[in-house]
Amino acid sequence: MTQNIYDTPEFFAGYSALPRSVQGLDAAPEWPALRAMLPDLPDRRVVDLGCGFGWFCRFTREAGAREVLGIDVSENMLARAREMTADPAITYRRADLETLTLSEGAFDLAYSSLTLHYLKNLAALFAQVHRALASGGRFVFSIEHPLMTAPSKQGWRIEDGRHVWPVDGYLAEGPRTTDWLAKGVVKQHRTMAAYLNLLIAAGFSILRIDEWGPTDAQIAAHPEWACERERPPFLLVSASR
Amino acid sequence: MTQNIYDTPEFFAGYSALPRSVQGLDAAPEWPALRAMLPDLPDRRVVDLGCGFGWFCRFTREAGAREVLGIDVSENMLARAREMTADPAITYRRADLETLTLSEGAFDLAYSSLTLHYLKNLAALFAQVHRALASGGRFVFSIEHPLMTAPSKQGWRIEDGRHVWPVDGYLAEGPRTTDWLAKGVVKQHRTMAAYLNLLIAAGFSILRIDEWGPTDAQIAAHPEWACERERPPFLLVSASR
Repeated sequence: MTQNIYDTPEFFAGYSALPRSVQGLDAAPEWPALRAMLPDLPDRRVVDLGCGFGWFCRFTREAGAREVLGIDVSENMLARAREMTADPAITYRRADLETLTLSEGAFDLAYSSLTLHYLKNLAALFAQVHRALASGGRFVFSIEHPLMTAPSKQGWRIEDGRHVWPVDGYLAEGPRTTDWLAKGVVKQHRTMAAYLNLLIAAGFSILRIDEWGPTDAQIAAHPEWACERERPPFLLVSASR
Repeated sequence: MTQNIYDTPEFFAGYSALPRSVQGLDAAPEWPALRAMLPDLPDRRVVDLGCGFGWFCRFTREAGAREVLGIDVSENMLARAREMTADPAITYRRADLETLTLSEGAFDLAYSSLTLHYLKNLAALFAQVHRALASGGRFVFSIEHPLMTAPSKQGWRIEDGRHVWPVDGYLAEGPRTTDWLAKGVVKQHRTMAAYLNLLIAAGFSILRIDEWGPTDAQIAAHPEWACERERPPFLLVSASR
């Protein structure tokens, strides 16, 4: 089973205090780019893989989605999501995404934000998602960029006054243990090719890829984000069944 | 027009002495991986974009291709290719790949090895290649990996005894000037997303991506290549029309 770091008290407290946890989607700088990848939502059936506090589930309902299923492994997060949701068309379900089963053809959009890099068995999930989507359905997700997860010692260095991000281990896929909000958070490093080839092997067509970095406007508002354009922190992918 | 560095004497002399120039495809460590992406060749019509000394053109004919067109911007390289070729089914043509036009539906395979990162206007070429391929035709190419072309100061550093490759400027697409065989060689840096999105926009379906690094057997034979697994030197892509 996937490490459920979200239900450790230290991590949950830290995660709950992040802007994107408190204020929702608009506090996530990559959200406008991810939102631009979404299909029209009115009357669509949506599944959110790693729904956390349910911000995206509620967003899709406000945008007209017919029914929404939010899935997460964290009891704490689902409890908070349920507290914040009063909508019978949104269902929250606890499940491990590595062993999840979904009904065939039950969804028009599968979505996942910053979750898939925790999973070891991504091929099984991609097969489930493909099966669960209607023909023409979309799979839109974000992950930590492989350049983020690759290094044995993640972090910026300063060289001649510039931020540089030293990369090693890029082709050595497997677990990386980092200290982020709590000690010993395990993420799975995969190459960009691995993500895309797994999608293609599951039957998806790649529609668009976005190696996300902050916009000029975002850097003007948050000058400390400028370094994130030196190496993208997130990878956003849109695929169709 | 694209910089034609291959026809400067210093570069041509250096390039002509590389193992892959003297010994052909088998001296290129990425060749087995690129070859594995090729479709069956018997009776196919092939175009090689940046054919150099014509090694790939001759390989495809030996594998049964019906007719082969090799295109390059370098007169020196085409002259050498013609000297090494005695086969009426292979034609060599001088053209700038940025302004190239090809006949509609004239090919079953378009191939390009380590050439496209020299081009500024890749969208025009991808549109030409798409138009020139028969339905179901394949486009297989290699480029320098975007991690190679991105940095403002390319090169390995040693940190705690490990090779690390400092990345900056990844999202800043545009020219990079390096000294490789000659001074002032200009390559165009693009993100991985840019290459793939340009292919998709031209109408291609992505079939497979390989962020190439040396195999264990290659490292056993060339221990000095081990660092190339820390960050892949080449990106190999297979797409279909």
